[in-house]
Amino acid sequence: MKLVRYRSVDGIYYGVESEGRIDRLAGEPFEGIERTGKEDHLSDVRLLCPVERPRIFGVAYNYRQHTDESGKEQPTLPVLFMKPSTAASGNGDAIEYPSDGEIVHYEAELVAIIGKGGRHISKEDALRHVLGYTCGNDISDRIIQRQESKFGCLLAGKGYDSFAPLGPAIVTDLDPTNLDVILRQNGAVKQAGNTRDLVYPVADIVAYLSRFMTLLPGDVIMTGTPAGVGPIVPGDELEVEIPGIGVLKNPVVAASH
Amino acid sequence: MKLVRYRSVDGIYYGVESEGRIDRLAGEPFEGIERTGKEDHLSDVRLLCPVERPRIFGVAYNYRQHTDESGKEQPTLPVLFMKPSTAASGNGDAIEYPSDGEIVHYEAELVAIIGKGGRHISKEDALRHVLGYTCGNDISDRIIQRQESKFGCLLAGKGYDSFAPLGPAIVTDLDPTNLDVILRQNGAVKQAGNTRDLVYPVADIVAYLSRFMTLLPGDVIMTGTPAGVGPIVPGDELEVEIPGIGVLKNPVVAASH
Repeated sequence: MKLVRYRSVDGIYYGVESEGRIDRLAGEPFEGIERTGKEDHLSDVRLLCPVERPRIFGVAYNYRQHTDESGKEQPTLPVLFMKPSTAASGNGDAIEYPSDGEIVHYEAELVAIIGKGGRHISKEDALRHVLGYTCGNDISDRIIQRQESKFGCLLAGKGYDSFAPLGPAIVTDLDPTNLDVILRQNGAVKQAGNTRDLVYPVADIVAYLSRFMTLLPGDVIMTGTPAGVGPIVPGDELEVEIPGIGVLKNPVVAASH
Repeated sequence: MKLVRYRSVDGIYYGVESEGRIDRLAGEPFEGIERTGKEDHLSDVRLLCPVERPRIFGVAYNYRQHTDESGKEQPTLPVLFMKPSTAASGNGDAIEYPSDGEIVHYEAELVAIIGKGGRHISKEDALRHVLGYTCGNDISDRIIQRQESKFGCLLAGKGYDSFAPLGPAIVTDLDPTNLDVILRQNGAVKQAGNTRDLVYPVADIVAYLSRFMTLLPGDVIMTGTPAGVGPIVPGDELEVEIPGIGVLKNPVVAASH
């Protein structure tokens, strides 16, 4: 099932999309799906970020080859950070390149969306707490990231408004352990990983997070990026593709401020 | 003005408290205050966390003496992190000591609550975006924090449910540049700092955060802890006092899980 969040002429809704037709839902889909009986058409609506201002949890250094290319040791635990809710954007939305940006990178990622929340979730139960999956691009200003990380923290470098494009849809009933994760920059493939290489797969991350905190419906987990990260510049067009989910496409524009 | 969030027999409200009487408000106070004309009494209600599931931004190493006691270099930029919204709790709520906890510390802090949100806020305008101030305790599991920080990230160590007690009230019209910040553990003073020693004062933090992200009404900024941090154990009673705001008191209990 493919869930979309969208703006139609009369409001913002979730819906179940299939072959261009959208079954409009009542409310949010995280804890259960209720259809309204109304129908919209993909060609008449604008897709939005699949979750409005979500909590966004990220996992750093979760593919060995990316950890190597970053010059880091392999981690001994899931290395977590948050991106602020205001970083989230949707398919087609501009990534705003900071006016003082120097080295800003794309990072294609599989993203899990929590359905039923909970605490102390076991690895065995974890995937039952995931509503579905989408594509994400964990845009990162490396200069600031390095300055922060020297002090053992990370927020501003990954926290700019527009630095967490998500979408285009939440796809349910996927096996998250064998998905290709592809990034194209202006049409050229730059990253081509597969989630089978995740050091901490989705179930492990969900279980680990919930050891510490109550997970909430709509929480977003960006699972980490494979090797091949690289710089972006204004004018670029970035695509994150996960076959089975779709393509998340975002232009890079110079920030006006 | 002293703003409280509380549970009365008939619901959860914000109110303006004075000498035990509470003027009940309609809605949240972040962008403007609307009184209902109804009155509650402090003795009849339970105070709650001043903001429900807020975004919580923290500043690390923001007092030189604490940075020294932590064995870190003095930072060259505001070092930011987030605590998840589920870490927030209120006055009187238990701090849950993790079942595998080894070194868990208190950290008394001045906390700023954003009223009017915004982006690219100047230092000069910054305090006009702050609704008021409260006390906070940035509970930190040092073992996990050190493991994460080695990889330049920080979340789990400061992210347990109950690791961000806030309260008891939001006090407006305070000068945040000269406030005593006191921590007592079982009645004994362990931290006694003053916000005049903040490396990055509140106005600087608000301006810096808003360079990256849109600040939202109700955002919580924990401004950093002065020297004197130390370990807690189940059975402790912790008090954060900021004269002019009040006392935030929380017991430490062993987590059941």
